[in-house]
Amino acid sequence: MSDLPIGVFDSGFGGLTVARSIADNLPNEDLLYLGDTARAPYGTKTLPQVREYALECLDYLVGQGVKALVVACNSASSAVLHDARERYKVPVVEVILPAARRAVQVSKSGELGVICTEATAKSLSYDDALAAVPNVNLTTMPCPLFVEYVEAGITGGPELLDVARGYLLPLREAGIDTLILGCTHYPLLTGVISYVLGDSITLVSSAEECAKEVYAQLTDLGLAHPKPREAARRFLTTGNPEQFAKLGERLLHRELADVRQVKL
Amino acid sequence: MSDLPIGVFDSGFGGLTVARSIADNLPNEDLLYLGDTARAPYGTKTLPQVREYALECLDYLVGQGVKALVVACNSASSAVLHDARERYKVPVVEVILPAARRAVQVSKSGELGVICTEATAKSLSYDDALAAVPNVNLTTMPCPLFVEYVEAGITGGPELLDVARGYLLPLREAGIDTLILGCTHYPLLTGVISYVLGDSITLVSSAEECAKEVYAQLTDLGLAHPKPREAARRFLTTGNPEQFAKLGERLLHRELADVRQVKL
Repeated sequence: MSDLPIGVFDSGFGGLTVARSIADNLPNEDLLYLGDTARAPYGTKTLPQVREYALECLDYLVGQGVKALVVACNSASSAVLHDARERYKVPVVEVILPAARRAVQVSKSGELGVICTEATAKSLSYDDALAAVPNVNLTTMPCPLFVEYVEAGITGGPELLDVARGYLLPLREAGIDTLILGCTHYPLLTGVISYVLGDSITLVSSAEECAKEVYAQLTDLGLAHPKPREAARRFLTTGNPEQFAKLGERLLHRELADVRQVKL
Repeated sequence: MSDLPIGVFDSGFGGLTVARSIADNLPNEDLLYLGDTARAPYGTKTLPQVREYALECLDYLVGQGVKALVVACNSASSAVLHDARERYKVPVVEVILPAARRAVQVSKSGELGVICTEATAKSLSYDDALAAVPNVNLTTMPCPLFVEYVEAGITGGPELLDVARGYLLPLREAGIDTLILGCTHYPLLTGVISYVLGDSITLVSSAEECAKEVYAQLTDLGLAHPKPREAARRFLTTGNPEQFAKLGERLLHRELADVRQVKL
């Protein structure tokens, strides 16, 4: 057992859905969240830049003392996973591999889809994660506007429905039976995504699958904190802490009480 | 569009996970939650009693003015669905049918499992929901202790792991590939459940699937509130409001600001 917090890193806010899934399953763990909002979105950066920024953030979390690191950002996951595993002694969990594994388990036809940011699409991270799986075909669809809608608090209405149809109907036409939500904002859009795709396509949340992996690793390593206690949830941002608290609250319908700014 | 809240009913606290999933997908909807904690758990009551209590609660919500009713309680869902549909003009969504549909979509072998309370198991609700589906076999396992662990804030540790193995390993031995979480408390136990069952069994959350159904029905009927706004989340309990707020906060890691007692 370890009293240290779990460190959760994202370029911005999306990782809050991962942090919440971890808190659901491990309510007695302290969490230390770092959102690199001053430099977000990472999607417009080159891969070496993303790696540099992400490692800087992870270094900071490790410097604060954490029992595990969670890379709660699809864009950064594949860029830093191997470096982070070599660089740190604590276990590192990311969002892509757990979601890819689940999608393979769920799909009957082997026709998978992933929706994500432009950066994640270009990185081919999900293609790589699935490369060794026989009889699987992946169709990737970047959905750049989805993050903006989520952050604006718009999850329905004719305008978003049109946008969602534009992104998602080609995936349905491609014959997918399983869709990976390859961006940690998207668990807040499962309603509209399901509505447009219909009942025959199953959604896999990278946030939820990542949280299960964190649970498994902490349990295997004997690091989990099973006893009921008041756990601390601290939030760090490289940007404006008031803005972070406000947008975080809008996304998760709860107050983020302890938000501080850090300089990396 | 309707400015009325969505009414969410449960015998106790479990339905809060459903309310949260609805809030994720429909952040601009007011929610009015009623937990019949004074008479919970319904699991020990006869079916006519459950029906009477549940309809009393739903009558109360309808009397307050709601745009839709959500029966966020597996034990009450099948007991009142048909009565509620006949009795009220607003759409009624429950938790069993959406989860059963998703499980059929996900399963490759047709070997499904459901974990639930004793009451839900005895009601054969999931058997009935799946009765018309060809080539499907359902194994039901009541897990009466799980709710107590969740409400005590225990989601790991050797004691719970032993209990979980006792409940879940027979399901794995039965060869299921898909497990329905047939109690709205269980989304808070996906970590331990996945850990014990392993990666090859996919979990289906009745809370999440119910929320998607609510989204679809409100959108189809033009009742949804797509524009960003400060939505009200009000909680009613037939029991002690302070206790309700305290336990609700423990389950959802957020303050339930507006909790009041009602007499039915």
